[in-house]
Amino acid sequence: MSTFGTLFRVTTYGESHCASVGAIIDGCPPGLPLTAQDVQVQLSRRRPGQSNLTTPRDEKDLVHLQSGVEHGITLGTPIGLLVRNEDQRPKDYSETDLYPRPSHADWTYLEKYGVKASSGGGRSSARETIGRVAAGAIAEKYLKAAYGIEIVAFVSSVGKVQLPSAISPPSQVPPEDDDAVEDALSPEFVQLLKSVTRAQVDEQLTRCPHAETSERMIKRILRAKEANDSIGGTVTCVIRNVPAGIGEPVFDKLEAKLAHAMLSIPATKAFEIGSGFRGTQVPGSKHNDAFALRADGRMGTRTNWSGGVQGGISNGEDVYFRVGFKSPATISQAQDTAQYDGTPGTLAARGRHDPCVVPRAVPIVEAMAALVIMDHVLIQNARKTAGSLLPAITTLPPTMVKPSKPAQKEELNQ
Amino acid sequence: MSTFGTLFRVTTYGESHCASVGAIIDGCPPGLPLTAQDVQVQLSRRRPGQSNLTTPRDEKDLVHLQSGVEHGITLGTPIGLLVRNEDQRPKDYSETDLYPRPSHADWTYLEKYGVKASSGGGRSSARETIGRVAAGAIAEKYLKAAYGIEIVAFVSSVGKVQLPSAISPPSQVPPEDDDAVEDALSPEFVQLLKSVTRAQVDEQLTRCPHAETSERMIKRILRAKEANDSIGGTVTCVIRNVPAGIGEPVFDKLEAKLAHAMLSIPATKAFEIGSGFRGTQVPGSKHNDAFALRADGRMGTRTNWSGGVQGGISNGEDVYFRVGFKSPATISQAQDTAQYDGTPGTLAARGRHDPCVVPRAVPIVEAMAALVIMDHVLIQNARKTAGSLLPAITTLPPTMVKPSKPAQKEELNQ
Amino acid sequence: MSTFGTLFRVTTYGESHCASVGAIIDGCPPGLPLTAQDVQVQLSRRRPGQSNLTTPRDEKDLVHLQSGVEHGITLGTPIGLLVRNEDQRPKDYSETDLYPRPSHADWTYLEKYGVKASSGGGRSSARETIGRVAAGAIAEKYLKAAYGIEIVAFVSSVGKVQLPSAISPPSQVPPEDDDAVEDALSPEFVQLLKSVTRAQVDEQLTRCPHAETSERMIKRILRAKEANDSIGGTVTCVIRNVPAGIGEPVFDKLEAKLAHAMLSIPATKAFEIGSGFRGTQVPGSKHNDAFALRADGRMGTRTNWSGGVQGGISNGEDVYFRVGFKSPATISQAQDTAQYDGTPGTLAARGRHDPCVVPRAVPIVEAMAALVIMDHVLIQNARKTAGSLLPAITTLPPTMVKPSKPAQKEELNQ
Amino acid sequence: MSTFGTLFRVTTYGESHCASVGAIIDGCPPGLPLTAQDVQVQLSRRRPGQSNLTTPRDEKDLVHLQSGVEHGITLGTPIGLLVRNEDQRPKDYSETDLYPRPSHADWTYLEKYGVKASSGGGRSSARETIGRVAAGAIAEKYLKAAYGIEIVAFVSSVGKVQLPSAISPPSQVPPEDDDAVEDALSPEFVQLLKSVTRAQVDEQLTRCPHAETSERMIKRILRAKEANDSIGGTVTCVIRNVPAGIGEPVFDKLEAKLAHAMLSIPATKAFEIGSGFRGTQVPGSKHNDAFALRADGRMGTRTNWSGGVQGGISNGEDVYFRVGFKSPATISQAQDTAQYDGTPGTLAARGRHDPCVVPRAVPIVEAMAALVIMDHVLIQNARKTAGSLLPAITTLPPTMVKPSKPAQKEELNQ
Repeated sequence: MSTFGTLFRVTTYGESHCASVGAIIDGCPPGLPLTAQDVQVQLSRRRPGQSNLTTPRDEKDLVHLQSGVEHGITLGTPIGLLVRNEDQRPKDYSETDLYPRPSHADWTYLEKYGVKASSGGGRSSARETIGRVAAGAIAEKYLKAAYGIEIVAFVSSVGKVQLPSAISPPSQVPPEDDDAVEDALSPEFVQLLKSVTRAQVDEQLTRCPHAETSERMIKRILRAKEANDSIGGTVTCVIRNVPAGIGEPVFDKLEAKLAHAMLSIPATKAFEIGSGFRGTQVPGSKHNDAFALRADGRMGTRTNWSGGVQGGISNGEDVYFRVGFKSPATISQAQDTAQYDGTPGTLAARGRHDPCVVPRAVPIVEAMAALVIMDHVLIQNARKTAGSLLPAITTLPPTMVKPSKPAQKEELNQ
Repeated sequence: MSTFGTLFRVTTYGESHCASVGAIIDGCPPGLPLTAQDVQVQLSRRRPGQSNLTTPRDEKDLVHLQSGVEHGITLGTPIGLLVRNEDQRPKDYSETDLYPRPSHADWTYLEKYGVKASSGGGRSSARETIGRVAAGAIAEKYLKAAYGIEIVAFVSSVGKVQLPSAISPPSQVPPEDDDAVEDALSPEFVQLLKSVTRAQVDEQLTRCPHAETSERMIKRILRAKEANDSIGGTVTCVIRNVPAGIGEPVFDKLEAKLAHAMLSIPATKAFEIGSGFRGTQVPGSKHNDAFALRADGRMGTRTNWSGGVQGGISNGEDVYFRVGFKSPATISQAQDTAQYDGTPGTLAARGRHDPCVVPRAVPIVEAMAALVIMDHVLIQNARKTAGSLLPAITTLPPTMVKPSKPAQKEELNQ
Repeated sequence: MSTFGTLFRVTTYGESHCASVGAIIDGCPPGLPLTAQDVQVQLSRRRPGQSNLTTPRDEKDLVHLQSGVEHGITLGTPIGLLVRNEDQRPKDYSETDLYPRPSHADWTYLEKYGVKASSGGGRSSARETIGRVAAGAIAEKYLKAAYGIEIVAFVSSVGKVQLPSAISPPSQVPPEDDDAVEDALSPEFVQLLKSVTRAQVDEQLTRCPHAETSERMIKRILRAKEANDSIGGTVTCVIRNVPAGIGEPVFDKLEAKLAHAMLSIPATKAFEIGSGFRGTQVPGSKHNDAFALRADGRMGTRTNWSGGVQGGISNGEDVYFRVGFKSPATISQAQDTAQYDGTPGTLAARGRHDPCVVPRAVPIVEAMAALVIMDHVLIQNARKTAGSLLPAITTLPPTMVKPSKPAQKEELNQ
Repeated sequence: MSTFGTLFRVTTYGESHCASVGAIIDGCPPGLPLTAQDVQVQLSRRRPGQSNLTTPRDEKDLVHLQSGVEHGITLGTPIGLLVRNEDQRPKDYSETDLYPRPSHADWTYLEKYGVKASSGGGRSSARETIGRVAAGAIAEKYLKAAYGIEIVAFVSSVGKVQLPSAISPPSQVPPEDDDAVEDALSPEFVQLLKSVTRAQVDEQLTRCPHAETSERMIKRILRAKEANDSIGGTVTCVIRNVPAGIGEPVFDKLEAKLAHAMLSIPATKAFEIGSGFRGTQVPGSKHNDAFALRADGRMGTRTNWSGGVQGGISNGEDVYFRVGFKSPATISQAQDTAQYDGTPGTLAARGRHDPCVVPRAVPIVEAMAALVIMDHVLIQNARKTAGSLLPAITTLPPTMVKPSKPAQKEELNQ
């Protein structure tokens, strides 16, 4: 349904031609400095019309905070917010309405609800993601302030155009022909995860932070545009400084919730965390992340095939994952298909469309990542605080008890 | 946490050395014929010791139904069930306990809870999946009886050993070198999805239904075994006869819940539905699934890149997806790593371990798929029934309303 | 938190001096005719300024539907709605702000959140109920259209002024002195439940449908007003035509959810269903509701001490309950109390306040009742439809199976 | 359904003639010392057969912990537990099975599920409460260890036999005839709340801690027994040392969740917190709880009409409430009623039954209270900890910010 989260809960509403789209964010910690501008930044990164690669509409998308904030400080009460739709009239009927658009949600919405918005798939509209991005921006602001958490997503492929292998996510590295050979996790990729910034990402039109690859992606997108066609791609995301211990086994493991969150974004078809599908090919002896003390005195792992998650729980290493977006269903060419009643025919082309949406998907991936981490941090805080109120455990074998209980407390309230 | 589902809810308990593992299944429809044997079948497919490819332990895993069923019929009340653990003593301490096992959950469990079971990662034990498989078997029984739904999973790769391209899931097909060429979805693969049975799957030790590939997989697994190493693989799953209209946008889209369910299974790192990552490379004009009337008079799509889901809602075509399982972290060789306190050292090898778990993962994937479909079917039934009680809509443009309301009702109560 | 319901979910936002108050209603059945006016009717009954008994502010409270409805028909997608606040500035500081208002939420909000809205208890403001009433109006519209359900609440007491015993809820009937004597449930009261209408309720300023009692209530309220004091009261509510089978044991019994809903309304302190506290005094032999065939051929009960609920499940009889509202905490007289820091002092009187809120509480009680019934109807529909898809049960003793399965289906889809 | 709670979640299963009844408790803080005996104490207080006032069956009800505890310490993982049913055979058919028992759940269960357990109302059996009591005992153990919280319930009335007015809950105090007179909250009652212990409660067969009243209650119960009839009563409960700030407005206010919890107990019809229904009659000027510094330096209220809750949030005062249990539906005399098919007839008496269940309800009320407080404490801890990680607020007017942030932290981790 339209609510996501347990303690930090986001509920969204709105389709493309109604009065507004918006969200209620419930469970935001009190005392967080927050202004509309904090939210606007990510909304503006999400909206179309930012380059000649995207559709020329400029929707502006100004956010209006309605509640939950006073004098620029969150009250801990629900934050209502909304963005008005520029075009609020139900769409005029046209002959193309006789056809459910292929691979779009027109037909399934009608099957599900028995009625649908005049504009097509209703909530499957990209405008639905505005509420997510706004909510994610609030979560991010908190996570940064309280934990120094940084979330950066970037485009890692468009069609078959990929980052160079050295800085590609594991599954984008071409496999060795010899079945007996398995590569190590590239140190350059690990370094990219540790260092990439949003500024670097936004420097490129494609939001792929590697300039040369970005140029090739632009060419691929323009080729699609010229062919009145579309092309998909992948977004890779890293979350830095996630505290260890986040994730709620057995059903709400951190990777499970991240997968849930990412596959709820329109047009996504695939998700992998850490080594992902490539991890199915690397033998355990090489894939295992051995432990070692880090320079800062904390325990870490020497490699990070795990993507920062073991047994469904964060281990303090960088969390990284990759999301696959299919090529957009809306294309500017005629399609042979059938009408709602099954009559075969040709759906005529309508206007110009965005040939590639992955650059705009970047802030949406970041937002959903923030929502997942935020909710899990709150749940784990409840447990840690509850545990810290109990007397120290003295009756168990030492290998069953975490040694550093005082350290834990300190971290919690630093 | 340990509950999954909204109307059909499964809650599990148990780790590897406690008295029992079990589950409560709440929300099972009343009136379903159900015996322990219905559940046992899938539990037995899950348990180890079925071939020389797996660990020799035979846990038996007899299920005991506790409630919710009388005279072999479900009452609609919660079904309690449990499977006793053979070895119920806390594990003896050994020197290896000083080391968190690499890429296992020992360390993260201790970080999260501050205390952990003597046997290691506690709930990250494979025995935790018993409750899921039992619950899934009940859901499957219902779905088969009420909708004729069939769920079949099979092993589609072990390490780099894959099914032949013609019958491989889209992402397992090697990409063309020429960026301008994109293949079609293989008709042989589509046919495999339509026809593959559990009997065919179980004929092969590896649960890969293609005998020649299975032989190669066996060799790959034995190679890992001889090297005291481990190897991962992928499981592909098809769900046939899913009614159109299942899935709850915007956050609980069908693919989002499937991804959530699959990534909650131990050792999973990746999920893709339909065309998955390959769908990011095929242009929209080829990737779009055009509509056409099917032989049975119902609307269908000519291709099925979408994997049976559009806009997060099932469209009546086969739902198929692929799940990646990393190579098992538990290996029978020594590992250089560090103790809990950071002291570097070598974790000695302990006993023989299952070098490849994907054959056993097959019934777990089927179970989680059944839980997702079951819950969504119930939620959608609530909506459809609610809508059917309202007067027919006469004030909307015809393209906004599903034409065949009577057909809908009939289907619902046939 | 700020979400209520499982399948029909209401999430609200807003406090008294922010931009707006509003709600998102998720899970509304598609195909329901709905206009802003349907919602406005109940909002207008809720707002203050309707008589000289209440505070003179006229807030107007015009509702703006944002989404989920097109051409006057619900789409099944979330319905966003909002009501603007007239006075949107944070409140100016005054000396009275040094004092937490006694029995108000100022102090507890500060304890809970560490920060609070300038206007006081933030979400404890009566304006918070606007979202509930709006959502309830939508639920009511559906329940009326689909089931003919009628929900009517009325004021049954103000201070010690009560309806005459013959038409009072059971607990308002004075007990017999002789411990051995217990009265029957008054037939006049049963008749009142069966017949009372909103029009009759609104005829009286107090919303007590008995004119003579209403006159006495008005006097009581005016006495409070003159004394710069306040007075509480009770609201009784009946829900007619609830289908049998609604309610989700064991934790979400119908009475449990009704109690939850009612005690979430500001200023409520008490709830009782059916015989309520009086049912603790009437022996089982008299309190039991014997079964009998009704004139319409359906099974019913001769009496209705149970309030239409047995074992947590509706039995088809009128559901009725009573809610107690304490005397308002905000009074127009000075109070001896302490400042936030504990300094004793006198909180000066501020302005004129509503001496009695129970008349305005009537639509709020109705709204919360509608939300509970709506959600339960949907959940039960999911189960009934699921059960109806299974083959008829033939292996159970006849007393374990409901005889009339066809009748059940018919009712469902009539 | 059969799960209660958000972070501390209890899921129960079982009816009276199945193999066992049990529960899974998810979200228990790790590190809590816990043995089966901790749970058994309350289970034994719940079970029948403890005096000649109750039914002579002795069910023993030994609890078996299944998981989540090792070496007597909770692991933070789900705790499975079960109690075997002595009589596990489906009940034999008898002529009385033709009749739905009046005011019992036989009929509504059949309406709801279409099928029912041979033993009658299935989950409406009193045995269902075993899981609740077990779960509550675990919650209580934590709350006592971490916060010193004490929960004591006692019988405050049986039929019309009540505690003396001076120590009665407010609504049990007879109203003054003169409408202008309203009494104060009795100091003796306040003192009883502060001091009553479980030992005092258990000293009396009736669990009414006032010996003389208990004697009168015994007589009333014996009179019911001799008449083959039954009688109800009320249970009052106090929760001491609840930290301020607990409760989740707007829908999950503390009193709302308590009401939900209490009305989910079999046979309950009424709930009131603090002044309850009497609070509707006491004018605001007298009913308001003025603030004052307590002897321990913390802020408190001079009176406690509010029952420790203001605006849905605990204020640190004693939380107290009263629950009404109707007279049991199962009586040992014949009843004129109708068969399932509507045929009028006489349901013959069957055996001896417990004429009054309120003494046994005492531990059930305590258990449900513990579950509510436990869940709310965890949720509030998540918020407080989250807030404590943010920088101090310096930009708000001082009356909007809680002064003592350091004190808050200290309290949290003392």
